[in-house]
Amino acid sequence: MMKARVTVMLKTGVLDPQGEAVRHALGALGFDGVEGVRQGKVIELDLAETSAAEAEANVTRMCEKLLANTVIESYRVEIA
Amino acid sequence: MMKARVTVMLKTGVLDPQGEAVRHALGALGFDGVEGVRQGKVIELDLAETSAAEAEANVTRMCEKLLANTVIESYRVEIA
Repeated sequence: MMKARVTVMLKTGVLDPQGEAVRHALGALGFDGVEGVRQGKVIELDLAETSAAEAEANVTRMCEKLLANTVIESYRVEIA
Repeated sequence: MMKARVTVMLKTGVLDPQGEAVRHALGALGFDGVEGVRQGKVIELDLAETSAAEAEANVTRMCEKLLANTVIESYRVEIA
């Protein structure tokens, strides 16, 4: 059994209103010096797979098909 | 300038309907062997701070105050 972690972020240049909202809220709470905020999602998967290489190939296909919108999002796969 | 990454996940035992939805969707797409899925969020911050220790203390306070709902979510702070 393997664990995989997928991190999906909006690509650079794509407007991130969630991140902007967090940045404003932090400023309103008195946190200075926050120059930029980007918010993304992380998906942790428990896989029956035993080969790390197979698991990574599989999870990459999951990203392409479902987990990320590759037009505006980039993703990173880590296998543990 | 420092970069911080905060990962916020629902605590173990807290129902994760988003993760469940992803698990079902992966099954429907023919991906077998996905035994569990948890979905969380990741927040990347650009900080004016120059001390890593100060940055970590600051970001931890941001988590407690805004970024995580510590009743049901756990968070992890990484400084780079």
